[in-house]
Amino acid sequence: MTATLYGLGIGPGDPDLITLKAHRILSQAPVIAYPAPEDGDSLARAIAAPHIPEGRTEIVIRTPMVPGKYPAHGVYDKYAAEIAAHLEAGRDVAVLCEGDPFFYGSFMYLFERLAGGHRTEVVPGVSSLGACAAVAGAPLVSRADVLTVIPGPLDEEAMAARLGASDSAAIMKVGRHLDKIRGVVERQGLAERAWYIEYATMDKQRVMPLAEVDDGAAPYFSMILVSRADGADGVVGDD
Amino acid sequence: MTATLYGLGIGPGDPDLITLKAHRILSQAPVIAYPAPEDGDSLARAIAAPHIPEGRTEIVIRTPMVPGKYPAHGVYDKYAAEIAAHLEAGRDVAVLCEGDPFFYGSFMYLFERLAGGHRTEVVPGVSSLGACAAVAGAPLVSRADVLTVIPGPLDEEAMAARLGASDSAAIMKVGRHLDKIRGVVERQGLAERAWYIEYATMDKQRVMPLAEVDDGAAPYFSMILVSRADGADGVVGDD
Repeated sequence: MTATLYGLGIGPGDPDLITLKAHRILSQAPVIAYPAPEDGDSLARAIAAPHIPEGRTEIVIRTPMVPGKYPAHGVYDKYAAEIAAHLEAGRDVAVLCEGDPFFYGSFMYLFERLAGGHRTEVVPGVSSLGACAAVAGAPLVSRADVLTVIPGPLDEEAMAARLGASDSAAIMKVGRHLDKIRGVVERQGLAERAWYIEYATMDKQRVMPLAEVDDGAAPYFSMILVSRADGADGVVGDD
Repeated sequence: MTATLYGLGIGPGDPDLITLKAHRILSQAPVIAYPAPEDGDSLARAIAAPHIPEGRTEIVIRTPMVPGKYPAHGVYDKYAAEIAAHLEAGRDVAVLCEGDPFFYGSFMYLFERLAGGHRTEVVPGVSSLGACAAVAGAPLVSRADVLTVIPGPLDEEAMAARLGASDSAAIMKVGRHLDKIRGVVERQGLAERAWYIEYATMDKQRVMPLAEVDDGAAPYFSMILVSRADGADGVVGDD
């Protein structure tokens, strides 16, 4: 059995932010798989589209996105079995992962089902974290700064505690949690130090100070970056 | 004035983990700059070497690495002026950044001096965070997990507090702080859930459970990943 399962980081959105390595694997793998909502198009497929040759076998991993629920075991069991059949027949399978495979990616559900029995390689990708900082022109962390990555769904009290204990924070998956997050940020006096970014590096990218964002909901692919760092350098610190 | 300053993420070590975008910019920029220690070779230059054409003007940004101190203002003032002269003469300058430019990168010191007066583009790269998780086969975070990125030099008490409040943690720049970090991790009963990674994705990469690492010092380019997550899926949560 020589086939390999690849978890392929394809980057945050701009198709040119895929790595040379992922690009090469994508050009060679006979089978590609990618997540998609229950109805509708796959963002991962769209990002990688310019790099996918004609005539590949494609597996669309459709997972229900029910607010308040995660896909049940059965969904990934089914797709893992389908992928395993290709691997056992000697065909490499590349699973497209938005951003980086192990940074809030659903690839881990396939990884935990398949890596034990099949040769598996995870190819890291440019994450939304670096992409959002880049397009906002906002350095995330330097020197001995602590960075906390906080999922938007976290409850208000826990979010406030985490934000309060950090030099910099990235609040991911803003979605319908925008107003809650804004409240937490404002109460800590950090509104002036917060950036809002949606669809970083994609054509429909928007970047603005958090204070200028309308109330309501934001897309799932949005992030708020907060920095307490003063940006001064030349200070004496520790390495 | 049409020249552009690029902060170019070149990825964590494997030259194939550079993005198509950074690769293209590198093939075109007439001037490249990269950090190096006061004496010795530049790791950034070594990572990007296969992609640097002959005959480019190269600026070696030599910064003293004095334990307990950061380079003084003057060092970056000098290099910023040298880079600005190229930009003002119409020559694009690509500054090579290990990993991602804004994730603990020294590029921010040039960015804060030059971005105000020159067209600047930050090209995000694959960070050591994703690279370490990939080579360890250890998913960083999923769903509503909080990830804390902790610099190794942080003092013991602060480190313990941050680790205790996180689902997952990445402790960066291990270096001479290895024994301190190990103590903090062990006292929280997390030794079984900690991976040690050095030089991720490079030829000299080493990956092992933290428990198997010898006492003493580690390289600067090493990381410890700790996860409390149980890896189970199919649970009911919040999106």
